[in-house]
Amino acid sequence: MKVRRSERLIDMTHYLLEHPHELIPLTFFSKRYESAKSSISEDLAIAKKIFKERGTGILDTIPGAAGGVVFVPVIEKEEAREYINALAKRLSEQDRLLPGGYIYLTDLLGQPQLLRQVGRIIASKYINEEVDAVMTVATKGVPIAQAVSYYLNAPFVIVRRDSKITEGPTVSVNYASGSSERIEKMELSKRSLARGSRVLVVDDFMKGGGTINGMQGLIDEFDAELVGVSVFAEANFKGKRAVTDYNSLLYVKDVDTQTKTIKVVPGNYFEN
Amino acid sequence: MKVRRSERLIDMTHYLLEHPHELIPLTFFSKRYESAKSSISEDLAIAKKIFKERGTGILDTIPGAAGGVVFVPVIEKEEAREYINALAKRLSEQDRLLPGGYIYLTDLLGQPQLLRQVGRIIASKYINEEVDAVMTVATKGVPIAQAVSYYLNAPFVIVRRDSKITEGPTVSVNYASGSSERIEKMELSKRSLARGSRVLVVDDFMKGGGTINGMQGLIDEFDAELVGVSVFAEANFKGKRAVTDYNSLLYVKDVDTQTKTIKVVPGNYFEN
Repeated sequence: MKVRRSERLIDMTHYLLEHPHELIPLTFFSKRYESAKSSISEDLAIAKKIFKERGTGILDTIPGAAGGVVFVPVIEKEEAREYINALAKRLSEQDRLLPGGYIYLTDLLGQPQLLRQVGRIIASKYINEEVDAVMTVATKGVPIAQAVSYYLNAPFVIVRRDSKITEGPTVSVNYASGSSERIEKMELSKRSLARGSRVLVVDDFMKGGGTINGMQGLIDEFDAELVGVSVFAEANFKGKRAVTDYNSLLYVKDVDTQTKTIKVVPGNYFEN
Repeated sequence: MKVRRSERLIDMTHYLLEHPHELIPLTFFSKRYESAKSSISEDLAIAKKIFKERGTGILDTIPGAAGGVVFVPVIEKEEAREYINALAKRLSEQDRLLPGGYIYLTDLLGQPQLLRQVGRIIASKYINEEVDAVMTVATKGVPIAQAVSYYLNAPFVIVRRDSKITEGPTVSVNYASGSSERIEKMELSKRSLARGSRVLVVDDFMKGGGTINGMQGLIDEFDAELVGVSVFAEANFKGKRAVTDYNSLLYVKDVDTQTKTIKVVPGNYFEN
């Protein structure tokens, strides 16, 4: 049974949103709705316009026999800026201050709406890059990696500090943890990353950058390639960072354990 | 500027999908599209019909001044069954067998499309329950918890075996690990779960159920309430399980390290 335009648009929107960065041939929709390709093309033109107007994303049309459409989720700069400003305010809340000047983030990194936005914001930076895998380190980076992975439609891999029998053979590297000045070990399951993969590294928090540097080392061991580094928040670090090229959504400018104040501002996301 | 129906339907679908289990007043859409409430009602009726036909979810209309619509994502039984059957086949692949009879799952639990489906399947079981939080244990349960959290629109909390300074004060319990017969400790950040919360427990794999039993203990410590338990896969366990009431998507019926065969079948998800 032929499906009406209004009905096609609803289901098509759903399908496109759940299959980001995937080439979908027009014939797929044509069959799904038993409708002519010309009608499908018109539907997609409407969707493209609305996605653009509302800042949902880009709908790329690829012409030709092997063509189709690709939905690329993005976020408008203004929307991202407002969201990050609001986040900076939340992170500055006094009761987030933990002993040692650490900041409590765990509640935020378990909220689905926040993770959706953070995933969309980080993914927007890499829409013109080919990303084969998103890499992070257990445990607190995982929600960020998964959120980004949803929007880039690339799998994520989890580096661990402790080996588990359920990982199979692993590759390990040693790295210098910048903040504690200790040598630590991290490892990645050998079959979780293919040689030559293009890897985006994400994490929740960066101080000296030692952990991220360790992941760079692992990427080298897999003959893979680093596409970029994005962190949810970076600390004000007095010293030489192991990583210089990165994006941060938030910047913890100052933590005063005496007056119990935290000052968090937007990170370098909008500068790069 | 008034927005046309076709354009409203696209953006409305996007909005509903990104805000599951959230009551949205009709006035919200009415303002967003500068359209009459009667037109919005008609739009929602179309969306409701298509969501139902395509197995996307239920669009509940709540009448009255405090009313609106709530989108509840579900999966059709047939679609879930097909998906789980296909998963069972993939888990049975010979090269997933690890020493000790363990099964390699890490690659699967990093794939965004798989996690979306698994999240939707598990969340579908609890659409009539009030869930305030999804609980899991680090590290491998996290992707499942996050996926379910997206569809239930409830935050997830991560129980850890090792305390971290960034968690703030924690509550800990000891539990008997069924498979290794050791007494272990797990802890949860005190401020990550409110007293009286209704908690859904999820995990990637269950053998004796000791870990899940430990989480039940933590739930008690928080004066919270267990809504249910769902695991991605359960093992064939010879012995008395610490947990008897649970849902499993997959059941690892038999692992033969001699002949190197794994037999995985659908779990009890469809029986309950």
